[in-house]
Amino acid sequence: MFNTLIRISYDGTNYSGFQVQANALTIQGELERALSVTYKQPLRINGAGRTDAGVHARGQAANYLAPFRIAAEKLPYALNALLPPDIVVTEAVEVSGDFHARFTAGRKIYSYTLDRAVFPRVMKRLYSYHLPEPLDLAAVRDAARLFTGTHDFKLFQAAGSSVTDTWRTLYRVELTEEPEKQLLVFYFEGSGFLYRMVRLMTGSLIRVGLNKLNKSDLEAALKGDNSDAAGPTFPAQGLCLEKVHYEQLF
Amino acid sequence: MFNTLIRISYDGTNYSGFQVQANALTIQGELERALSVTYKQPLRINGAGRTDAGVHARGQAANYLAPFRIAAEKLPYALNALLPPDIVVTEAVEVSGDFHARFTAGRKIYSYTLDRAVFPRVMKRLYSYHLPEPLDLAAVRDAARLFTGTHDFKLFQAAGSSVTDTWRTLYRVELTEEPEKQLLVFYFEGSGFLYRMVRLMTGSLIRVGLNKLNKSDLEAALKGDNSDAAGPTFPAQGLCLEKVHYEQLF
Repeated sequence: MFNTLIRISYDGTNYSGFQVQANALTIQGELERALSVTYKQPLRINGAGRTDAGVHARGQAANYLAPFRIAAEKLPYALNALLPPDIVVTEAVEVSGDFHARFTAGRKIYSYTLDRAVFPRVMKRLYSYHLPEPLDLAAVRDAARLFTGTHDFKLFQAAGSSVTDTWRTLYRVELTEEPEKQLLVFYFEGSGFLYRMVRLMTGSLIRVGLNKLNKSDLEAALKGDNSDAAGPTFPAQGLCLEKVHYEQLF
Repeated sequence: MFNTLIRISYDGTNYSGFQVQANALTIQGELERALSVTYKQPLRINGAGRTDAGVHARGQAANYLAPFRIAAEKLPYALNALLPPDIVVTEAVEVSGDFHARFTAGRKIYSYTLDRAVFPRVMKRLYSYHLPEPLDLAAVRDAARLFTGTHDFKLFQAAGSSVTDTWRTLYRVELTEEPEKQLLVFYFEGSGFLYRMVRLMTGSLIRVGLNKLNKSDLEAALKGDNSDAAGPTFPAQGLCLEKVHYEQLF
């Protein structure tokens, strides 16, 4: 069997999330359909992360085992010809048999984008959350530093996950003001993320920026003490899986 | 009667163009519907430019006469609450009775955006045209200068217009490479534009960049001599009406 890693970008607007579900349009479903046509037999993929309904990706990763080799440099073209225009395979790499896109994954980077214009910018509306209110960005940056390091993020996990170990390490939480300063982008880089953790952290940070949450309450939440300080879960359309790192591919 | 200028941005993807048509979804139709609800009677608008199906705008303008005054600073909020999320009114200004968004319009700026990434960038796909082929940008810049000034652009007009005077003045044709250099944006600033003129000029310039058209052939086309040098008409989704200037509003 030939094991292949693919990198995928997608606009999640019209999908019920990454993971295959019965009677729902999913990213995984579309990828498996394209792969099954290409290899002329049913194939399944392992995704690196299961993005929710409406969440986007510029750097999702997945692997699959195939019964014969197709040259890696030709695969993106073959698959993109079969995929809808809102899912694009940007790279394919042959990997060793024991590579698994989820279990082998190292650091991941997510972004959360806020549109800060007074009126929503139409061409960004599907890829950002409109928040024109004044924000204390110094306070947000200060609070963002609390998240870095290793913490029990159990309060930053939405119901609906079966994960039991809720300790995670964040290497970087960064705010970037994009051109014309009307887009504010948060980057979260970590060893892994709990269910809706990024959207909950973004919710807390914005409450700090709106002076509706104190840094000390957030500190308590990271010690598991103050569940009111976590969230709200910010809307899906602002979230994007930017990158999945692999220490070694072979 | 109270005359009001409104500035509008829209994502043209799902519309049959700006101008009202029977049995078609149009920007003008949606704006007039929102205005008629707001003012509780049928109102018509004059648009500054009639963008085609699928063409976008960040700075379209229109005016309308209303039977009573609504404070200009409140109008965008009132209208946006009634408009679909892909049409956003960004400004309203009271103007004198003889102001007309089309006849009073001065310079207009259009942009045309090319996605130069190897594989299409999904989050840009609705707002750009994917053209990964190598381009001789120096040749494109050189050719772009030919368009500036006053010319008879009759060969840069698509069939279907009743315009008889085809002389127009372009003040600026500029290429900008956007962040990461994977977006190439053309800006065209002029006294006015013929039907599909920007998309035809972009088509010619890209043929120059692909070494499929000589600068001298383009020069001949601008003297009305070489109709083969004009176009092709580039796809609608790359085009955006950026700005309509008014020398004086009152």
